Amino acid sequence: MGPGDDLAQVLVGEGGGSLLVGVDQVIDGLHVVADRVSWDRIGSKAMRRALSDVAAMAGKPLASLASVVLPPGALDDDITALCKGLHETAEAFHAPLVGGDVAIHRLAEHPLTVSVTVLATPISPGPVHRSGAREGDLLVVTGQLGGSLLEDGGGHHLDFCPRISEAARLRELLGERLHAMIDISDGVGRDAGRLADAAGLQVQLESDLLPLREHASVAAAMGDGEDYELLMAVAADTAIPPTVPGIAPPCQLTSIGRFNALPTADAHRVMLVDGAGSAVDASECGWDHGQ
Amino acid sequence: MGPGDDLAQVLVGEGGGSLLVGVDQVIDGLHVVADRVSWDRIGSKAMRRALSDVAAMAGKPLASLASVVLPPGALDDDITALCKGLHETAEAFHAPLVGGDVAIHRLAEHPLTVSVTVLATPISPGPVHRSGAREGDLLVVTGQLGGSLLEDGGGHHLDFCPRISEAARLRELLGERLHAMIDISDGVGRDAGRLADAAGLQVQLESDLLPLREHASVAAAMGDGEDYELLMAVAADTAIPPTVPGIAPPCQLTSIGRFNALPTADAHRVMLVDGAGSAVDASECGWDHGQ
Repeated sequence: MGPGDDLAQVLVGEGGGSLLVGVDQVIDGLHVVADRVSWDRIGSKAMRRALSDVAAMAGKPLASLASVVLPPGALDDDITALCKGLHETAEAFHAPLVGGDVAIHRLAEHPLTVSVTVLATPISPGPVHRSGAREGDLLVVTGQLGGSLLEDGGGHHLDFCPRISEAARLRELLGERLHAMIDISDGVGRDAGRLADAAGLQVQLESDLLPLREHASVAAAMGDGEDYELLMAVAADTAIPPTVPGIAPPCQLTSIGRFNALPTADAHRVMLVDGAGSAVDASECGWDHGQ
Repeated sequence: MGPGDDLAQVLVGEGGGSLLVGVDQVIDGLHVVADRVSWDRIGSKAMRRALSDVAAMAGKPLASLASVVLPPGALDDDITALCKGLHETAEAFHAPLVGGDVAIHRLAEHPLTVSVTVLATPISPGPVHRSGAREGDLLVVTGQLGGSLLEDGGGHHLDFCPRISEAARLRELLGERLHAMIDISDGVGRDAGRLADAAGLQVQLESDLLPLREHASVAAAMGDGEDYELLMAVAADTAIPPTVPGIAPPCQLTSIGRFNALPTADAHRVMLVDGAGSAVDASECGWDHGQ
């Protein structure tokens, strides 16, 4: 399978079984602040980020690996906590940590780096890609958006639950009507643009429909990173239930816009439309880690 | 499969297919010196290190992934060269690079980090583990040892060829007589000790038999890191050919010692015996990366 998705798909042996596989990283100073957060949460976040890519393709977790680079002065208690966070989160999502590598940086100032590889298997009728959106499709999102990174270093970006069960349930429920999916790591504006771009379409989001997290603004919902919610293109005439059926705790589902033909070849990929009907370019609303 | 091997083995689906998977890292200042070596060789080395673990288990490469953390000032040409090194080496060993992640460090002083995950499939009659050595087994090594890291940053550690074809051929040739295997990353002393330890045995190496690289001393052969040769336990009464049959360029095979019962519970795991028959403890002869 070509590049461009959250995970790659690899055929294993002649039997025809296939595997989804991907890698993601958490780096001190970019995705977490290691001296303000307990290290079990860093390990857990690294595992959750990788598992969120499994959710984005509606895969079933199989196993995981982690490679870690520690600063030389790392405390034993912190290292143990990091491993615990990785292990426990992997177990909780049925992706047991089966291997890894640990190295130690040369200098104490060098940042803790955690890279997690996930293996998953596709579920019927196959993985959901980024590129399947069609003209007229609904843009649907799980959960709430914005304000994921609190000033004290905490917030949703550390606590989020990869939407693996939700994705599997939605795939089962919608089948081939679930045309495309991605997880929101860089803001709903930017990630909606990725779905539109992969399909050669434009996407219009309605600002009044965005499911805002408490205290989050529309700008925060559009541009904040690390929501890790699912963003989908669903066939136009589908009735979207208010929550994902059969999932506890309840996971909100909201139709927030629509995919259209690109009006001109150089038109913006993402338009944000307000209640009065005025539309602005939102292609660049998003989060650059480390910028 | 429990921990302790170069790769983990994972069952994929109900069909019973299985996969070998592992991860390894190359970090500037520990495994390479990024401002003294062209970056295509860094990418290539990172891929080779991971592939050497596939050789150690007599696996067949399937695919690979890489996660990279770049210093913010990295030059475009260097980044392109790094990708080229990863890609071309992956292709050369039939482990195409199917996915990855790139992040950028916060500070220019933070080191380039390359983590490579490899996927492989076992070949008949199954993967070779570290733990299978038996009393009386021969200790056999491929190639030559020592002097892998030259003072200018170059040397064998950048150029080595992961012994994948050799391992497959030896597995085919020796079958169940190939009891255990590991690749030498931390010096033949230390890695022979790992085979002995995994089997609850002692291993005796004969210093006169060590296949020394040109200009390398016995101490260098015992203790230098990054040879990436195969080290095996082979059934006692096996005739060891001088080279691996059917492999070009020729790959030397040398029987360098034997596995014995541990004389006492607290005896040293690795003994180095010289021509006069005197034996010294060599359990700690080896290379600590970054020490």
